[in-house]
Amino acid sequence: MAATKTYLTGIQTSGMPHLGNYYGAIQPALAAAESNDTLYFLADYHSLNSVKEPARLREDVRSVAATWLACGLDPERTVLYRQSGVPEVFELATVLASVTAKGLMNRAHAYKAARDRNEAAGSTELDAGINMGLFNYPILMAADILLMEADVVPVGRDQAQHIEYTADIARAFNHLYGDAYSFPVPEGAYPQGEGSVLPGVDGRKMSKSYDNHIPLFMAENRLKKLVRRIPTDSTPVAEPKDPDSSVPFQLLAYFADAERTDGVRKRLEAGGMGWGELKNELFDTINDRFGPMRERYEQLVAPGSELDDILEAGAARARGRAAATMAKVRRAIGID
Amino acid sequence: MAATKTYLTGIQTSGMPHLGNYYGAIQPALAAAESNDTLYFLADYHSLNSVKEPARLREDVRSVAATWLACGLDPERTVLYRQSGVPEVFELATVLASVTAKGLMNRAHAYKAARDRNEAAGSTELDAGINMGLFNYPILMAADILLMEADVVPVGRDQAQHIEYTADIARAFNHLYGDAYSFPVPEGAYPQGEGSVLPGVDGRKMSKSYDNHIPLFMAENRLKKLVRRIPTDSTPVAEPKDPDSSVPFQLLAYFADAERTDGVRKRLEAGGMGWGELKNELFDTINDRFGPMRERYEQLVAPGSELDDILEAGAARARGRAAATMAKVRRAIGID
Repeated sequence: MAATKTYLTGIQTSGMPHLGNYYGAIQPALAAAESNDTLYFLADYHSLNSVKEPARLREDVRSVAATWLACGLDPERTVLYRQSGVPEVFELATVLASVTAKGLMNRAHAYKAARDRNEAAGSTELDAGINMGLFNYPILMAADILLMEADVVPVGRDQAQHIEYTADIARAFNHLYGDAYSFPVPEGAYPQGEGSVLPGVDGRKMSKSYDNHIPLFMAENRLKKLVRRIPTDSTPVAEPKDPDSSVPFQLLAYFADAERTDGVRKRLEAGGMGWGELKNELFDTINDRFGPMRERYEQLVAPGSELDDILEAGAARARGRAAATMAKVRRAIGID
Repeated sequence: MAATKTYLTGIQTSGMPHLGNYYGAIQPALAAAESNDTLYFLADYHSLNSVKEPARLREDVRSVAATWLACGLDPERTVLYRQSGVPEVFELATVLASVTAKGLMNRAHAYKAARDRNEAAGSTELDAGINMGLFNYPILMAADILLMEADVVPVGRDQAQHIEYTADIARAFNHLYGDAYSFPVPEGAYPQGEGSVLPGVDGRKMSKSYDNHIPLFMAENRLKKLVRRIPTDSTPVAEPKDPDSSVPFQLLAYFADAERTDGVRKRLEAGGMGWGELKNELFDTINDRFGPMRERYEQLVAPGSELDDILEAGAARARGRAAATMAKVRRAIGID
């Protein structure tokens, strides 16, 4: 019988996820949680490197946690916690720094990209605007993973280097201290193929950086306005239309069942259905699908809800694992 | 009435202190503890950057702690703790990293010296052999100091840059978050003038790096041998000698009272006292002075002594202060 593998996922806390995140990240993670030992954490201390507004940081973390719970994350099955709720991670990061070559960090993609931007901007100081939190990011991420003795880390392909670094750092530790304790060397789990990509309101991939996204939870009237503003051409109501070149239809196909999608397709192709009616259909579909989740989200994100207790209970479970790992690490390095 | 100032000193844990350390560091620190709020900590996690042998690291920390206690540190008056006993420091270091420019670290003396050594050795990778613990050292040191809201940090002049960095990092945090919480900006306290420098057995300043040192506590017979091996010239017993150019006499002047020193000086100048007799005199003086401390040291360093309880009690007191600081810091940054 194969041993159960531990899956760890860090969740960025930079504001409300959008519909693209739901299909690309949240839904697959919830599916993975059905049959694995899963830990999902809210990476609040990673956010601190870029977010210097305390109120926003605080709200973002609660909002993202409430979103995942409203989408169906079961906090009994999955250990859900704030990174800051398990302070052992910072001590482990200090241990890992002592076995991590600085040269490795110099070659980190995110750091090099920031230097390249400075160079392109003609800055004489290539490290301008780069703080040590950003530079140390791969070490803290390695600590997040190794602290939980995770085997598998589901991430996007852009994070592959960070997983390689974590494996390198684990091996460096194991090489020095392996007689006493060895970290499991984790692997990344990457999305297979290109996958289907949810379009944003302008037809490009939905992304906050394109500002073409539909937030997962927004007030009904605001959602309606946003959907009605999706650009369409000026084909009159009566004329036939090509569903597949229409963004509202592409979106509808994601959220409606096959029967409903098919009905709308036929009506568009036949003529007699206008873009306005299509958008009403899309709004109703999204609203029917995410309305109940939104209600749950609103309950959870309200001050004094059970959200804080859920996160605290998750942190307590995570700290149990963290303390066990750190006891072994401390004994191995001689600080016990 | 002036508020009491808090003094914080980090103690390197790299092996047994020598007689030069006693006069240069331990005795002044014990004097400062008479009239100030003092915290002294054993910097075990700083050692980890260079010491990868767990047994040695463990023994070094106990040995250094036992040395300071045997020399008279009163753990009721001074908060004595292991750095690793107050894990809040690693979380604070993570906070500080987010407000610390990488450019500042690039210019740190210790890091630049390591690069210069690589360059001089013809290495093509200037960061070869430099780990991230070394590179991050100034941030962890800033966290050591700011966590305890220390006002004054007594250090050698070679540490002046680290104190300046700590002040810079504190100001960067205060600039961003000062409405909610500000760190006291600490000052270094440096030795005045050149001071008198205890010579090593070869006449140069006593230093482990010259391998000319007399360990503070060593077995009586080994101490006797070491003293008898101090180089002297071949002036016959009967002839007059110059006390001030003699290393054993210079050392004697440190440890003997004025009357005894004066008597020996006269006998050397008059002739009739040989170097061997002088060395016996020196051994007796050192042994009388440090013998009782050595006995106490031996008791404390033995396995199962009260040493570990003393360090644990100190850590508990230090953690009380650390938790208070971190609660304020967390509230200020929005991670609470």
